[in-house]
Amino acid sequence: MTQGQEQVEKLRELAAMIRYYILAATTRAGSGHPSSSLSATDLMTGLFFGGGFRYDPDRPDYPNNDRLIFSKGHASPLFYALWLAAGRLSEEEMFTYRQFGSPLEGHPTASFPYAEAATGSLGQGLSIGLGMALNARYLDKLPCCTYVLLGDSEMAEGSQWEAIQLAARYKLDNLIGIIDVNRLGQRGETMYGHDLQAYKLRLEAFGWRTIVIDGHSYPEILTAYEQARQAAGRPVMIIARTLKGKGVAVMENRDGWHGKTLSPDDYQQALQQLGRVDCSVRGEIKTPERIEPEPGSAAEIAPLDYPADQPVATRKAFGNALKRLGPGFPGLVSLDAEVSNSTAAEVFKKAFPERFFEMYVAEQNMVGAAQGLALRGKLPFVSTFAAFLTRAYDQIRMGQYSEANLKLVGSHAGVSIGEDGPSQMGLEDLAMFRAIGDSVVLYPADATAMERLVEAAARHRGLVYLRATRAATPILYGPQEHFPIGGSKVLRSSDRDMLTVATAGITLFEALAAHEELKQEGINLRVLDMYSIKPLDREILLKAAGETRAIITVEDHYAEGGLGEAVQSALATVAVPVYKLAVGKKPKSGKPDELLDYEETSRGAIAHRARAIAGS
Amino acid sequence: MTQGQEQVEKLRELAAMIRYYILAATTRAGSGHPSSSLSATDLMTGLFFGGGFRYDPDRPDYPNNDRLIFSKGHASPLFYALWLAAGRLSEEEMFTYRQFGSPLEGHPTASFPYAEAATGSLGQGLSIGLGMALNARYLDKLPCCTYVLLGDSEMAEGSQWEAIQLAARYKLDNLIGIIDVNRLGQRGETMYGHDLQAYKLRLEAFGWRTIVIDGHSYPEILTAYEQARQAAGRPVMIIARTLKGKGVAVMENRDGWHGKTLSPDDYQQALQQLGRVDCSVRGEIKTPERIEPEPGSAAEIAPLDYPADQPVATRKAFGNALKRLGPGFPGLVSLDAEVSNSTAAEVFKKAFPERFFEMYVAEQNMVGAAQGLALRGKLPFVSTFAAFLTRAYDQIRMGQYSEANLKLVGSHAGVSIGEDGPSQMGLEDLAMFRAIGDSVVLYPADATAMERLVEAAARHRGLVYLRATRAATPILYGPQEHFPIGGSKVLRSSDRDMLTVATAGITLFEALAAHEELKQEGINLRVLDMYSIKPLDREILLKAAGETRAIITVEDHYAEGGLGEAVQSALATVAVPVYKLAVGKKPKSGKPDELLDYEETSRGAIAHRARAIAGS
Repeated sequence: MTQGQEQVEKLRELAAMIRYYILAATTRAGSGHPSSSLSATDLMTGLFFGGGFRYDPDRPDYPNNDRLIFSKGHASPLFYALWLAAGRLSEEEMFTYRQFGSPLEGHPTASFPYAEAATGSLGQGLSIGLGMALNARYLDKLPCCTYVLLGDSEMAEGSQWEAIQLAARYKLDNLIGIIDVNRLGQRGETMYGHDLQAYKLRLEAFGWRTIVIDGHSYPEILTAYEQARQAAGRPVMIIARTLKGKGVAVMENRDGWHGKTLSPDDYQQALQQLGRVDCSVRGEIKTPERIEPEPGSAAEIAPLDYPADQPVATRKAFGNALKRLGPGFPGLVSLDAEVSNSTAAEVFKKAFPERFFEMYVAEQNMVGAAQGLALRGKLPFVSTFAAFLTRAYDQIRMGQYSEANLKLVGSHAGVSIGEDGPSQMGLEDLAMFRAIGDSVVLYPADATAMERLVEAAARHRGLVYLRATRAATPILYGPQEHFPIGGSKVLRSSDRDMLTVATAGITLFEALAAHEELKQEGINLRVLDMYSIKPLDREILLKAAGETRAIITVEDHYAEGGLGEAVQSALATVAVPVYKLAVGKKPKSGKPDELLDYEETSRGAIAHRARAIAGS
Repeated sequence: MTQGQEQVEKLRELAAMIRYYILAATTRAGSGHPSSSLSATDLMTGLFFGGGFRYDPDRPDYPNNDRLIFSKGHASPLFYALWLAAGRLSEEEMFTYRQFGSPLEGHPTASFPYAEAATGSLGQGLSIGLGMALNARYLDKLPCCTYVLLGDSEMAEGSQWEAIQLAARYKLDNLIGIIDVNRLGQRGETMYGHDLQAYKLRLEAFGWRTIVIDGHSYPEILTAYEQARQAAGRPVMIIARTLKGKGVAVMENRDGWHGKTLSPDDYQQALQQLGRVDCSVRGEIKTPERIEPEPGSAAEIAPLDYPADQPVATRKAFGNALKRLGPGFPGLVSLDAEVSNSTAAEVFKKAFPERFFEMYVAEQNMVGAAQGLALRGKLPFVSTFAAFLTRAYDQIRMGQYSEANLKLVGSHAGVSIGEDGPSQMGLEDLAMFRAIGDSVVLYPADATAMERLVEAAARHRGLVYLRATRAATPILYGPQEHFPIGGSKVLRSSDRDMLTVATAGITLFEALAAHEELKQEGINLRVLDMYSIKPLDREILLKAAGETRAIITVEDHYAEGGLGEAVQSALATVAVPVYKLAVGKKPKSGKPDELLDYEETSRGAIAHRARAIAGS
């Protein structure tokens, strides 16, 4: 045997064992996706153990490791079996697959140490890989590659084409995708079946190199990886013809076997078809070159400097804050969806052009790529209009399961943006971000608060959302004021307060005006700036509940899931009435003040409600 | 002059007037997007008044009207000016643009009678158009065309490519897109600038016919529309090279003019550049052939038939309900994202294959297309996993501003799906859908309730979300039970109830089990099925608040924005404590029961909490 033949023989041996563990683990679990794992087994065995993939299993965080993302996360049995074959997982651990408490979850999550990202919602892995490739190429400047295993069904997701266009735009020849074209989706044939040319044509039109192969031929697989690593200024897609369920007659290339495990009889027959399996065989992953990125060094952060008498929009303060923090956080990067002049991310871009990524009008990929950057240790701030972050809710949702250190900024929140009308108004963003596990949701009212909260977000590990206002608002706070996450500010208070207004952002100024108006009438309003929507400062609310007759919440957001419900929930076991003022009528175009009046979140509406409660 | 030259002369005259109104209206309003309107003025004038577009302005709802969607909704001044030029809008009305209460909003919404759909969140119009084209081709079987005006920036949105692939898949040669390639996005050049070949190559790879033209040459424009209407089994994209701000020197083809209006001086100069404008000129839109779709006739709906002793998953009941209602609702159609065997939409598909549309794994386009179908009078039910509807949150959000009669069904809600793990668990869907204005959110616990609520959703006009459970659950309700939207069911009640449990869906069965357990201990639990999460039955909650010591809410959903907060909000001014049990720990794979226990939403957790409250 030649050396090449020997290598192929060894790979086949490993693949047989991997197929065995795919079947054994899913059959034991009674659920999972064996057929989708089997189609990609040869592709992944060839990648892992064929010499192309460079990774130090002792140091998963080593910067110059190649990265592999299973975008088709349902092929997790294959993913886990690969790590078993690499000697990093015992058979016993393998058989905990899908059990409560096992790191081997149904779809990969951060609980499995070798999972680069949580996947399982289709069409997200390529964006994450793109973020990692951006990091390697433009930030860490390392030669490592990022591989993404893709399913053919998920190529229908638009997010894929967002990632595909951006990868070409950024000339990421260190990004290598592998489409496992097994022809069959969950409920029948995919859009293009085994028409590999359909994928080739589309990808090449989008500027990718393509390599079309038989995904079960090791010579073709190994050659493809070799060619793919020969960088040529373009990302590469290996388009592999495979058979779903490959190697198990009852399911091979047959419809009706998605997410279905074998019966005991079928399992026995399948084992016979696998032939001799040596469960002791282990493969070796080549380790990468020892190259480290240049360490960034943190410089001092400049102090704040907002003249007290000049209104500034919090979105502008966001841009200023990024720039101010730039030297202190060398890992801080900014991604924006072609609106950096509106979100003010351009302030950072101008100061640190090499740390700014224009992601164009493609929010899903932007958030996915930011995840990739975060998972490689960077500190990405993603910005666009709050309304358009709804576009990326699935990516945001999945980010929590990757435990990605993501920061998102939504500008142009609320009806107070005015004339542009409802399509541009972020009115559900608080609800959307509150319903993410462990999220932090911040809504500063003035430039100082925004600056301090951007800094708090940068120091906090985990998903943080910052809500920004379009209009310029007065400076409320001096440059020394602190804004801890979970805190609040008491802006108006006396020992004769009758009612409390708990609000944040643009409507805080309405509350302050209502306070002035009502003072003349002998009604004292306590005014709270609840800038930390989640976690919420329950203590200050309890104090207000004890000292005033009622609490009125005010927010430029729909009535559901926002600040009002957060406060009502925090006080749900306390006997104080909590009245909610929020957006309730169909929003429309108009002047900001007209719209706040119309939605009954203005100073007038607050005063009106306060008088009604005071008089009752 | 030849007839053709005369026609072009007339079109130029109209275009000059349209340009005038674009500038006059935006300058008066002090905001808006004149430059983006001017680039498409010739394209749209040619379409409207060049004879290609067939529309009866007296009957906007006439089924065989062509349709025109401004996907680049920020070009609304152009859109409104076209209708002025068609004699359907006075100058006075035109000048209410962007004023509070005017139907001429910053971006088109349903308040403008000729707007086919609300747009302004980019990358959505083509999907809506695709839905309308599907309707014309496969349901109404009419020869009318759907036109979609697209911006070049928005071609970066993945949703576009979802629509593009599906339109080719369904051979929609009645769908004609026009890309206004004006080179400039909001903050600089787009990804491809004036490289028209980049668009051509990509679109042809996706199976579209393309026609590349100079978007300011009337002969080319008119020829393109003529060619485009020659149906050839493929959708058509007209790719037009245009200049942003065309006709106004200060902004023509210049960066920095997106969403910016002219100064008084620039305005005066611009008027001079327009030359003579005759504001009395009006154009004629050709009317369509008088063809009506065959009227559907409603047949009787079969009664329910679930044996009381056989558990059925509510997702299965959803599929059964669609099939059962099919004869009674001839406009009912089903769209599914390649998971119809999981959502059970396949039950309907098998019974009514011509009314089922496979939308593949592309949720954004699915929801957009459903909007298009709804806006053309159909009754679309969209289904996928609840988790994956997050993918289409922007489309769902925009649907409310189109006033689309949309029904969405999310299956596999909650941690109770079990082993597949968090990526597949819908845990934020209630928050997401509650925060849509005027939405209805329903969460049936058993098959009877699901059947009745699907029927209620079909009869309700507006956005309805139905939440479905993966697991089979016992039948609770007899076939005659009624489930009005906004109602609830009292399942356990006595005059000695100490506490109330308000829950819905899968956790209702946990509450019933806790009731049994606690009864032995002398603690009587009232159990409420709050199947209508929004609107919520506040009356029954007030009664419970008056008659029991506390209310415990239980839900298989994150703690924020779901049933618990809805109940807490409903009772926020009532002095009854409301305790919330909801998903609070990082979800993982495991058995459904293990996961409910882990998240403290199980029978055991309910009993534990009830005992603690009872003992306190």
